[in-house]
Amino acid sequence: MAKTKRVITILLRLLALGATVAAVVVMVTTHETANVLNLTFKAKYDNTPSFKYFVIAEAIVSCYTLIAIILSSKSLLWRLMVILDVFMAALLTSSISAALAIAYVGKKGNSHAGWLPICGQVPKFCDKVTGSLIAGFAAAIIYMLLCLYSLHAVLSPLLGVKP
Amino acid sequence: MAKTKRVITILLRLLALGATVAAVVVMVTTHETANVLNLTFKAKYDNTPSFKYFVIAEAIVSCYTLIAIILSSKSLLWRLMVILDVFMAALLTSSISAALAIAYVGKKGNSHAGWLPICGQVPKFCDKVTGSLIAGFAAAIIYMLLCLYSLHAVLSPLLGVKP
Repeated sequence: MAKTKRVITILLRLLALGATVAAVVVMVTTHETANVLNLTFKAKYDNTPSFKYFVIAEAIVSCYTLIAIILSSKSLLWRLMVILDVFMAALLTSSISAALAIAYVGKKGNSHAGWLPICGQVPKFCDKVTGSLIAGFAAAIIYMLLCLYSLHAVLSPLLGVKP
Repeated sequence: MAKTKRVITILLRLLALGATVAAVVVMVTTHETANVLNLTFKAKYDNTPSFKYFVIAEAIVSCYTLIAIILSSKSLLWRLMVILDVFMAALLTSSISAALAIAYVGKKGNSHAGWLPICGQVPKFCDKVTGSLIAGFAAAIIYMLLCLYSLHAVLSPLLGVKP
């Protein structure tokens, strides 16, 4: 039973690692240059603080996930890891929300604030950012599952016992 | 000991309730009209999807917190509440991140995308939004503390026991 739990946890972590690494690589390698009214502008992730935050958060979670996979055999650390998993889930949720909010303005604009959509000028950049955000979203879902699984495993032996 | 825990939890929930209700009230009641080049524009929270999401999320957490305070004497539900607390913390984190990302563009603009800052035109609106975001941020921190406190309480009796 403990072995099944460990295998499921490691599988979930491997999936999360794949998703976060994909999100970082796609976001960092994406750039597109466009000409608008004789002005050249280059769309890159580091022009937008939210996308920078997204890349940094996904990179931190990638590193943590890798360390967690390596250390998962040392069960002494499991209590610390339950707490850190919750933090990583929060970090992923926060970064994907901030990046999505900006990506939405990039796609649809905001007529009330006078912000025009930019996806018409840099369609490839937008497509790749969308891909990166989907990967980040998948990572956040996987970490949520990981947290629920840890919490369930922690809470179930206490069935009926008052806190 | 169990009584101290309950008192601390209820106190934290009351603080969170105050913060989320303040965030919703300030955000919803804020609007400002500005004249730019003979065009009138009205700044309101529901012109921005991220701010709408922020208000809805804070309202949901307010309702949940109120119910949690009322039901906290019924200890049968405490396991469900640990899980729901984590969800509420994630919802708060997500909504504050999305709203902050947009507020930052409103304050600083984004020259690369050609989005101009709007806080020069509607300074009062910006100040009140900032206030609302600070309240939302406080609520998120309080919920994080609540989760850590629950997790600590759940994990500490298992000291040294393998999962």
